[in-house]
Amino acid sequence: MAAAVVVDTAKSRHARLRPVPVDAVKLTDRFWRPRQERNRTHTLPSQQRQCEATGRIDNFRRASGRKSGVPFHGFFFNDSDVYKWVEACAWQLAIEHDREIEQTCDAVITEIAAAQQPDGYLNTYYMFEREKERWTNLKDMHELYCAGHLIQAAVAHHRVTGQTKLLDVATRFADLICQRFGPKEQGKTEGVCGHQEIEMAMVELSRLTGDEKYLQQASYFIDARGRGLIGGNPYHQDHKPLREMEAVTGHAVRMLYYTSGAADVYAETGDDTIRTSLERLWTQMSQRVTYITGGQGARWEGEAFGSDYELPNARAYTETCAGIANVMWCWRMLQLDGEPKYADMLETALYNGVLSCLSLDGEHYFYQNPLANDGGHRRQPWFECACCPPNIARVLAQLGGYFYSTSDDTVWVHLYAANQSQVKLRDRRAIGIQQETDYPWDGEVRLTIDGDGEFKLKLRIPAWCDGDASMSVNGENAFKAAAGAYATLRRRWKRGDVVRLNLPMPPRRMLSHPYVSDNAGKVALTRGPLVFCLEHVEHAGVDLRSIVLPDDAELSVAWRDELLGGISMITAAGKGLDDAEPRLYLPLRPGTAQRDVTLTAIPYYAWANREAGRMTVWIRRDG
Amino acid sequence: MAAAVVVDTAKSRHARLRPVPVDAVKLTDRFWRPRQERNRTHTLPSQQRQCEATGRIDNFRRASGRKSGVPFHGFFFNDSDVYKWVEACAWQLAIEHDREIEQTCDAVITEIAAAQQPDGYLNTYYMFEREKERWTNLKDMHELYCAGHLIQAAVAHHRVTGQTKLLDVATRFADLICQRFGPKEQGKTEGVCGHQEIEMAMVELSRLTGDEKYLQQASYFIDARGRGLIGGNPYHQDHKPLREMEAVTGHAVRMLYYTSGAADVYAETGDDTIRTSLERLWTQMSQRVTYITGGQGARWEGEAFGSDYELPNARAYTETCAGIANVMWCWRMLQLDGEPKYADMLETALYNGVLSCLSLDGEHYFYQNPLANDGGHRRQPWFECACCPPNIARVLAQLGGYFYSTSDDTVWVHLYAANQSQVKLRDRRAIGIQQETDYPWDGEVRLTIDGDGEFKLKLRIPAWCDGDASMSVNGENAFKAAAGAYATLRRRWKRGDVVRLNLPMPPRRMLSHPYVSDNAGKVALTRGPLVFCLEHVEHAGVDLRSIVLPDDAELSVAWRDELLGGISMITAAGKGLDDAEPRLYLPLRPGTAQRDVTLTAIPYYAWANREAGRMTVWIRRDG
Repeated sequence: MAAAVVVDTAKSRHARLRPVPVDAVKLTDRFWRPRQERNRTHTLPSQQRQCEATGRIDNFRRASGRKSGVPFHGFFFNDSDVYKWVEACAWQLAIEHDREIEQTCDAVITEIAAAQQPDGYLNTYYMFEREKERWTNLKDMHELYCAGHLIQAAVAHHRVTGQTKLLDVATRFADLICQRFGPKEQGKTEGVCGHQEIEMAMVELSRLTGDEKYLQQASYFIDARGRGLIGGNPYHQDHKPLREMEAVTGHAVRMLYYTSGAADVYAETGDDTIRTSLERLWTQMSQRVTYITGGQGARWEGEAFGSDYELPNARAYTETCAGIANVMWCWRMLQLDGEPKYADMLETALYNGVLSCLSLDGEHYFYQNPLANDGGHRRQPWFECACCPPNIARVLAQLGGYFYSTSDDTVWVHLYAANQSQVKLRDRRAIGIQQETDYPWDGEVRLTIDGDGEFKLKLRIPAWCDGDASMSVNGENAFKAAAGAYATLRRRWKRGDVVRLNLPMPPRRMLSHPYVSDNAGKVALTRGPLVFCLEHVEHAGVDLRSIVLPDDAELSVAWRDELLGGISMITAAGKGLDDAEPRLYLPLRPGTAQRDVTLTAIPYYAWANREAGRMTVWIRRDG
Repeated sequence: MAAAVVVDTAKSRHARLRPVPVDAVKLTDRFWRPRQERNRTHTLPSQQRQCEATGRIDNFRRASGRKSGVPFHGFFFNDSDVYKWVEACAWQLAIEHDREIEQTCDAVITEIAAAQQPDGYLNTYYMFEREKERWTNLKDMHELYCAGHLIQAAVAHHRVTGQTKLLDVATRFADLICQRFGPKEQGKTEGVCGHQEIEMAMVELSRLTGDEKYLQQASYFIDARGRGLIGGNPYHQDHKPLREMEAVTGHAVRMLYYTSGAADVYAETGDDTIRTSLERLWTQMSQRVTYITGGQGARWEGEAFGSDYELPNARAYTETCAGIANVMWCWRMLQLDGEPKYADMLETALYNGVLSCLSLDGEHYFYQNPLANDGGHRRQPWFECACCPPNIARVLAQLGGYFYSTSDDTVWVHLYAANQSQVKLRDRRAIGIQQETDYPWDGEVRLTIDGDGEFKLKLRIPAWCDGDASMSVNGENAFKAAAGAYATLRRRWKRGDVVRLNLPMPPRRMLSHPYVSDNAGKVALTRGPLVFCLEHVEHAGVDLRSIVLPDDAELSVAWRDELLGGISMITAAGKGLDDAEPRLYLPLRPGTAQRDVTLTAIPYYAWANREAGRMTVWIRRDG
C-alpha cells in the first residue's frame, strides 16, 4: 500500500527531500490538534450537509440516472467542491479512524463512480442536453480543473485507505484526457484549462502509478500555456510562457496552482528552465506582492495579483484558496532543496492568512481575508462558489504531512507543535521524534529523539527569530542558532537524547518596505509566527483608524485562556488621534489633540469570532 | 434672444443667485485664457476629427440615409459624444467668433437633424434592424442619456447663437419622451434611464421654453428612481429613492448627474425633501469620499464611490467626468443660496481633479485621475468610450459663466483670474468689473468697479485662506476677511472704485482625517487653490515612494516660467528612506538610514506632460 504522503517526492530525482506520511505524525498540541478534531466533528460533516443541500451530490446522482427529473444545480465547476471534500475526508481518515466520515465518504464515492461515462468522461454539468458541448470551452468551463481535483482526491483516498474504487475512476478519466489533449504532431487537440489544477494532479497520478504518460501530460499543459490557446490573457497566465514571466500575474489561485504544478514537473524532470522561472517568480512574489499574513492576490478585479507593492489593506482580496496555494507552492519548493525561506513563508501563510478563513466553531469561512475591515466582513457557512471551505478542511487534515521531511541520513524538522512521530531514513531506520512545546504561544521546544546511530537532525530556525535562537543537546552548553536557516545537529544519537530549542518570541513591530504606500507610517505587531491585529471589541469608543502606537510604547504579552479558544494578547499604552473634526483635509498644525488608549492586539486568525466590529493589522505610529 | 448662461436660474423661484452669461466675462489672464484659446485652436478641432475618424458622425449619416452600406460604429451611446462636442462649440462661440468652429458645428447639426425620425425619435444606434428594440432596455442602453445631451447641446446652441435648428430637433424628441414616459395613471410607460442626464436637460429646456411639462418630466425621472424600475441596483442609484439615500453611492458620474438634476428641479419647485437630501448627500460626499483634488469615485469596480474614507491613491478611479459632475452639482447648490462651501469645492475640483484631464497640448486626456502612479498612466488622444474629452472642452468653454452671479442688488464674485466683465443687477443696472491678478499663482486681486450708486459686492474668501485674508477699498485701511465666506462690501460706488483683495498663498502641508488609512503618516502640499505633487522628472535616482518631507522642513516657492506652461514650484529639503533592502517586512529599528533629497513639487494638474515616471500627491512625513 502506498504511503499516505501529500506530495510524493520519495522517488523524485530532482527533489532532495522525501515526504513523511500524514499518519506518521500524531499532533498532540493545544493549537492544531483541537482544530483537526473539530474538522472531524464539525467541519467535514457540515460540509457534507452543504454539498447535499446545494445539490452538489445530486448532480452526480442526476448524471448517473440514480435521480431523474432534477436540474443541474449551481455552478458548472461544483463537482470540484465534492472532490476536495472527499480528499479532505481521506486525509482526516489518515489521522484517525472515524466511521461516519468513512461511510459518508464511501457513499459519495459510489455516487461519483456511478456518474462516470463509458468512455471515462466525468463532469456532471456536461450531461444530457450539454453532452455535445464537452471540451468546447477549455478557457472558461473548468472541465480539466474538475478532473484535476478528482484525480487528487482519488490519489489521496488510495494512499490513505488502499482502496481503488475512486482511483480507477480517476485513472480512466485521466487516460481519456491524455488521449485527447496534447501536441498536434501526435494527432491530439492542443489545449489547456482556464484554471490550472490538472497539472499537479497528473504528476501525482504519475508518482502513484509509475506511469510516465501522466507526467508528460502535466509537462504538456505547462508548456502549452502562455501561447494564446485560451485567449492570451494575463488573467489566465496565457499571455506569455511560464519561462518568460517576470512576475506572478492574473488570477492568484490559478497562478499559484500553476507554479505548484510546474514545481512538481521539475521535481521529476529536472528541467532547469522551469526551476529558474519558479525561483524568479517566487522571489518577486515574496518581495513585492505578499501580505504580511502570507495572503496573496491584492485585487478584487479578477481575484488577481496587483502591481509590485500594491498591498491595500481594507480592499485586500487575499482569497483563502490563494493563501493555501501559496502553502502548496512553498512546500513543493522546500522539498526540492530544503531552502528555509520556503518554510518561513509556508508557516506565515498557515498561521495567518490561511487559518483566518475558518471560524472557531469550524463551520464558517472567509473567502477574502482583508487586513482591515469595518466589521461588515463576516464568515459565511457556505458560498455559491465554495472552493475555500473544502480547501481549508483539506489543509487541516493533511497538516501533519508538512512537519517533517527526510533526505538520505537527515531528518528535517519544518514546523513546531507538540507531536509524536516516526520518520524513516533512506536506510529504512525508523526514528521516533517527540516534540513537547506550547508553540506558537511559546518558543521553547523539547525534542526527544528515539533512534540509535549516526544521522543528522536539521531544525528549522524561523527567520522571525532574528538572531536570538539558541539550542542545546541533553542539557549541554547552549549555542546560538542562525535565524532563517536549518540548524544541523550531526551526532551519534542515543535513544532518549533531548534537544532543546529556544526560539524567543518577543512581540515585534514590523515595518513595510518604503514602497508599500498603504503601510507608510504604520507598524504591524507580530509574535513568533503570528501576526496580530486590533479588533473593535477591545477598543470600544475608539475608532481603530485613529489609534496610534508610539514607537517607544512598551509591548506586553498576556495569556488569556478563556478568550477565543485561548490566545496570547499584546498590549501597549497607545494614543487616539482627535477624530471629531469632520473635515477630510486640514492644515498640519503642531500638537494634534490626543488621548490615552490602551491598545490590545489579538492574533489575526482569530478576528471576527465575536461581535461585528472594525479590525486592523497595520497601526499608525505617527502622532 | 436668450442669454448665454450655463444654468439659467434667472427666473428660478427657489434659487437666490442669478447667472451671468458666458459672453459677459472676458478672461484675459495667463492661466485660463490660453487654455480657452487652445480649446478653440486644438481641442475642439481635434475632437471633431476624432468624431469623424471613429464613425461617430457617420452614425448620423447612416441613420439619415445620407450614407449607406456602412455599419453602426462603436458604442451604443456614441451619439452623446457628438452632442457634447456641439455644446462645447456653442460655448466656445460665446467667447469669440470662430468661423471654422461655427461651420463644422453647423455641418454636424445638419447631420444630426437629418437623422431625426418622423416621430421625433433620434438615436443612431436604434435604426433599421434595431428599430424594434427602441426603449426596450432603459437600464443599460442610454437612450434617455443621449437624448439629454442632445437637449443640453441644443439649449446651449440656441442661447449662444439664437438659432433654432438644433433646438427644434431637441424639442421634438423631448416631446416624444414626455408623451411616452411618466406615471402609469397618466397612461404612460414607467421608466428611468440607467445613466442620469435627461433630468438636467429637461429642466434647462423648461427654463428656455417656459414649458412646464419638461420640468414635470424631470421631476418624474427623479421621483421614479430608486424603486426598482431598472433592477434596483446601487450602481444605478435605483436601490432606494433619492430622499432616503444617506451616502453618494454607485457609479459616480451617474450619481452626480442625478444630484445635479435634482438641484435643478429644486430650484424650480422648492421641494424641501429634495433639498434636505441634497444637503445631506453633499455633506457626506465632501466629508467622507472626496479626494483632495476634488476628484470623485474611488473604485475601479463600477467606476463607483467607495465606502466612507476609502480613498486609495494609486488605484483611485476619479473619472474626469465625475470631477466635472462635482463642479456641476456644486454650481447648482451654490446658486440656491450662495453657500461658500460649494464654491470652495468647485474651485478645488476645477483647478485639480478636472484640469488634470487635459494635456498641455490640448489634445490628450485622462479618463482616470489617480493621486499616485508608477508612470504607466498617460493621457490618450481619444477613447472608445469618449465621454471625458468633450466634457472637459465644454467646461473650459463655459468657464466664464462660473465667475459671477447676481442677486437683487448684489454682485457675487466666485472665482478669481484676470478678466473684464459686465454684470446686470435686478434693476438692470450694468456694473463693469475688471479683475487684475495673477491668480492662481498669486493671491493679490485688484477689482476695479465700473458702476454708480449703492449695491453690494460679495467677494469669495476661499476656505484655504485660513484666516489670513484682508481687503481694502480705494487704498483705505485694510481689514481682515473671514475665510470660507463671502465678504460683503455695501457702499455707494463710484466709477473706478478699486477693491484690493489679499489672499495670502503660503505653501501648506495638509493632513487627512485620521480615518483615511491610505494617507496615514502622509501630507499633501497645497498652495492657494492648487494641489501639488511630486513627479519623477525632478527626482531622478530616488523612488518617490521613499521620499520623506520632515514636518520642520521649510517650504519655498519659486516661479518657473519655462516649465509646463509656467508654474510655481514648491521645494523643500527632504529625506529619502533606505529602499535597498529587498524584504517586504522588517522589524522596526531605531535610525533607519536616510539620505538628503531635494524635494520639488509641481501642480498636480500638470503631471504626466513630460517623460513618463512616477507621481505622488501624498508624501510621507515619518522617518
